[in-house]
Amino acid sequence: MPVSERALIERIRARAGRAKSSVLARGIGDDCAVLRPPRGHELLVTTDFCLENVHFRRAWHSARVVGHRCLVRGLSDIAAMGGEPLAVFLSLALPADIPQRWVNDFFDGLLALAERWKTPLAGGDVAQSPRGVMADIMVLGSAPKGQSVLRSTARPGDLIYVTGKLGLSVAALNQFRAGKKPNARSALRHFFPQPRIDVGQSLRQRRIASSMIDLSDGLSTDLSHICEESRVGAVLYADSIPRPQTDGLELALNGGEDYELLFTASPKARVPAEICETTITAIGEIVSRRGMWLADSSGKRAILKARGWEHFRAKAK
Amino acid sequence: MPVSERALIERIRARAGRAKSSVLARGIGDDCAVLRPPRGHELLVTTDFCLENVHFRRAWHSARVVGHRCLVRGLSDIAAMGGEPLAVFLSLALPADIPQRWVNDFFDGLLALAERWKTPLAGGDVAQSPRGVMADIMVLGSAPKGQSVLRSTARPGDLIYVTGKLGLSVAALNQFRAGKKPNARSALRHFFPQPRIDVGQSLRQRRIASSMIDLSDGLSTDLSHICEESRVGAVLYADSIPRPQTDGLELALNGGEDYELLFTASPKARVPAEICETTITAIGEIVSRRGMWLADSSGKRAILKARGWEHFRAKAK
Repeated sequence: MPVSERALIERIRARAGRAKSSVLARGIGDDCAVLRPPRGHELLVTTDFCLENVHFRRAWHSARVVGHRCLVRGLSDIAAMGGEPLAVFLSLALPADIPQRWVNDFFDGLLALAERWKTPLAGGDVAQSPRGVMADIMVLGSAPKGQSVLRSTARPGDLIYVTGKLGLSVAALNQFRAGKKPNARSALRHFFPQPRIDVGQSLRQRRIASSMIDLSDGLSTDLSHICEESRVGAVLYADSIPRPQTDGLELALNGGEDYELLFTASPKARVPAEICETTITAIGEIVSRRGMWLADSSGKRAILKARGWEHFRAKAK
Repeated sequence: MPVSERALIERIRARAGRAKSSVLARGIGDDCAVLRPPRGHELLVTTDFCLENVHFRRAWHSARVVGHRCLVRGLSDIAAMGGEPLAVFLSLALPADIPQRWVNDFFDGLLALAERWKTPLAGGDVAQSPRGVMADIMVLGSAPKGQSVLRSTARPGDLIYVTGKLGLSVAALNQFRAGKKPNARSALRHFFPQPRIDVGQSLRQRRIASSMIDLSDGLSTDLSHICEESRVGAVLYADSIPRPQTDGLELALNGGEDYELLFTASPKARVPAEICETTITAIGEIVSRRGMWLADSSGKRAILKARGWEHFRAKAK
């Protein structure tokens, strides 16, 4: 590492100190960060690894992109509970030969997104990595007590909805894998996905969502988590799944890192077609029989398996 | 990895679920863990890496020891604020060839200590590591609002105290380095250090400590953090520093991982000789002039530099 850990911490501290927060009573510089969450709120905590050659590749992803995507994973989890983010903690292990420029750009990407959501970098750890960049991001958030939207509360008869369009991020990745340059639209969604925090909060405040998850692993896999936790089944309507190309069903079902929201709502709920300028689409329904099925336009059902994208695992092994 | 990430998460979940907690409303199995800290408390958050060949070596440290030491780092930070631990989050990256037995023993060590302090494992992440075991531990704790004991509140004239004896842990490490077997006493302190949570809480409740830090990097380095954050200086009395051997001054000053508490208290404070069966020793005083000095029995002062133990960095490079 071109700078000592101590010097790196001091620089991060100077930079992180710019974001003002009423929640953060004490940030970097003590044994612990001290936070004062909003009164009457419960806490939300999520942690996510972001590992070189597992979640990103330095040849494909710039340092700024890595910093952004690293934080998106955590913010998206907060969005999926209908919560608001309060603070970010980052543990970062860097190989000895990492250029200082890379580290600066990584923080630029991460802190720009943190500032966008008024979420201060409140602490973390740094170390030298034996191989590759390894980041572990922790986001702390909150929601009014008892109102966090869980995965385990979908009911048979509920309709299934998603925000936005699915499959763009993995399309960019497939283009990288084929040695091509991704088109601008899918590259933007892959490099700089935006967490649906506003939409998640609106769905909670208006008590629309009966259950919710974010689409990080892919629709089929993330839907299976809702089904398992709620002990229900699901039928998806193939034609309804919003995707950029008509032939993009496979990408929409099993691609990952869309960071859209997947939620269920009672058939009696009034679900708007758009929330916070984000399209909402009904794509299926919850059934009592355990399992997942994909129905075509004629109503014919085929078994749907959880085949979500598992990072670069196939290549990493 | 001999088991899939999903299977590993399920096993961790089954095991972590055994610990009951009034704070944890929702543990592993959703986008976020949901916690309800005690009313009127502020939150404490700390994260620490525990990396193979940086913080431990598989040849020297059993999996159970690694799990224990990994969590001690976080619990000790909570102790240093006078807080109580509420929940633990673990991000764990394992190399593909790690034996399942190692993973089980690691969790045995970590969860035994977590259960000792009634602190549930509430979430985290797992991934495959390109090289070596990499753990990132996050501990969430709390203290009554405004009462957390900081590093930045030492005042000139305050006396400096430590709990227990210093230098035992690094003594064991030096024996490993020399190819010897550590003696039983130092090995126990090195392998299974205990976080001083009871002592830290007592010092806060009785309003004895004006500032506090835990001794993880070594007395000289950790004292320098108090001095920097409080913008003061310090004089230590060499003969007063509690150590197992009379010739152990260097180890006591610059060894690390003692996980004892270093605190300051007003000269008017009544500081007991023992708290929760742990010896308390006055070792110096805070002065207004910035810097650190070591005074010998004749009162002669020499400049004291922060030369704390920096893990295995010298060897890792």
